[in-house]
Amino acid sequence: MKLYGAPNPAPNPRRVRIFLAEKGIDLPETPVNMMKGEHKSPDFKALNSLGQLPTLVLDDGAVIAETVSICRYLEELHPDPPLFGVTALDRAQIDMWIRRVEFQVQNPVRNFWLHAHPRTAALLTEYTDFGQSNVEAYGRALKWLDGELAGKTFIHGEAISMADICAETAIDFATWIGLERPPELANLAAWHERMAARPSSRA
Amino acid sequence: MKLYGAPNPAPNPRRVRIFLAEKGIDLPETPVNMMKGEHKSPDFKALNSLGQLPTLVLDDGAVIAETVSICRYLEELHPDPPLFGVTALDRAQIDMWIRRVEFQVQNPVRNFWLHAHPRTAALLTEYTDFGQSNVEAYGRALKWLDGELAGKTFIHGEAISMADICAETAIDFATWIGLERPPELANLAAWHERMAARPSSRA
Repeated sequence: MKLYGAPNPAPNPRRVRIFLAEKGIDLPETPVNMMKGEHKSPDFKALNSLGQLPTLVLDDGAVIAETVSICRYLEELHPDPPLFGVTALDRAQIDMWIRRVEFQVQNPVRNFWLHAHPRTAALLTEYTDFGQSNVEAYGRALKWLDGELAGKTFIHGEAISMADICAETAIDFATWIGLERPPELANLAAWHERMAARPSSRA
Repeated sequence: MKLYGAPNPAPNPRRVRIFLAEKGIDLPETPVNMMKGEHKSPDFKALNSLGQLPTLVLDDGAVIAETVSICRYLEELHPDPPLFGVTALDRAQIDMWIRRVEFQVQNPVRNFWLHAHPRTAALLTEYTDFGQSNVEAYGRALKWLDGELAGKTFIHGEAISMADICAETAIDFATWIGLERPPELANLAAWHERMAARPSSRA
């Protein structure tokens, strides 16, 4: 299989790399040059009509796009250590946390990036007021997540899961684009320190 | 177990009801009065800190929020007919399609609803220009989906899946808020007709 990706700070390819590192799977990334728009080329869009990274192509040519779907597939091939849960309830609740992190935390980061960041202004039609409003939305989301982390080691409890990887990459990308994590959110700070201490965080 | 929901046109509770109808699962919905803000009450937020519907509470008190996660859990209890796929590749690709539908089709509908619809103007700070820009984004998404449906009966191929249910509810809700489906998108029209003809569409 062939995993197409892109280097940091692109948060989605990083999510897969952290997942691979946590699982101990050796699957090198084939870089696609986003600066040159290679992910929007006809050749690449023949693989993934949305021109998005990461994209996984299996040996028989079948394509899996979408970060979480790629990781979900790799989890089935390499069940241990489990990052999507063990029991039906675990799996549902980790799925819930992945979605909550994506909708609550990742979405405002993405909206700020697309609509209020100088780097994207040259490329996209920005709606700056809307983009700026996501700074507050991101702050509210982190406060909510801080409360949810009270008494827990990881987002779904005692074991790391895909939900933690989603939150880590969103928050690190947010920091990179200038959205600071309020240091007074102590549960979140301790969780982030635990995540950053893992070798996978260097992916 | 107890399933909290709300009547139409709320699209997320409807996604679960269509899923239940397709699976033949008898699980009555306990309605929560969104007009009275019951989903944001302290009692309800003790179950689901985000105050969102649907929410599933198991007999032992465990809570599963998020539409797709609830359906994923019910799929494990009632595997037939499968709506999340049978093989590892199926499951990954249906997950991919769920995510593509949510990000590409559902997001612009939601953004238009939150930021440019008169019903929400009284309740929320709207960014109207941004909201309006989602009309075009929704149109682009439908055109893309129309192309992807060429030669297929359902979004993932020959069998209905959760991705179709997600697309159906998003598109029907869009119509309800005034975002019309362009009739010239013939693959999409034929697919929608197939979906609307199923008894589950009345859920």
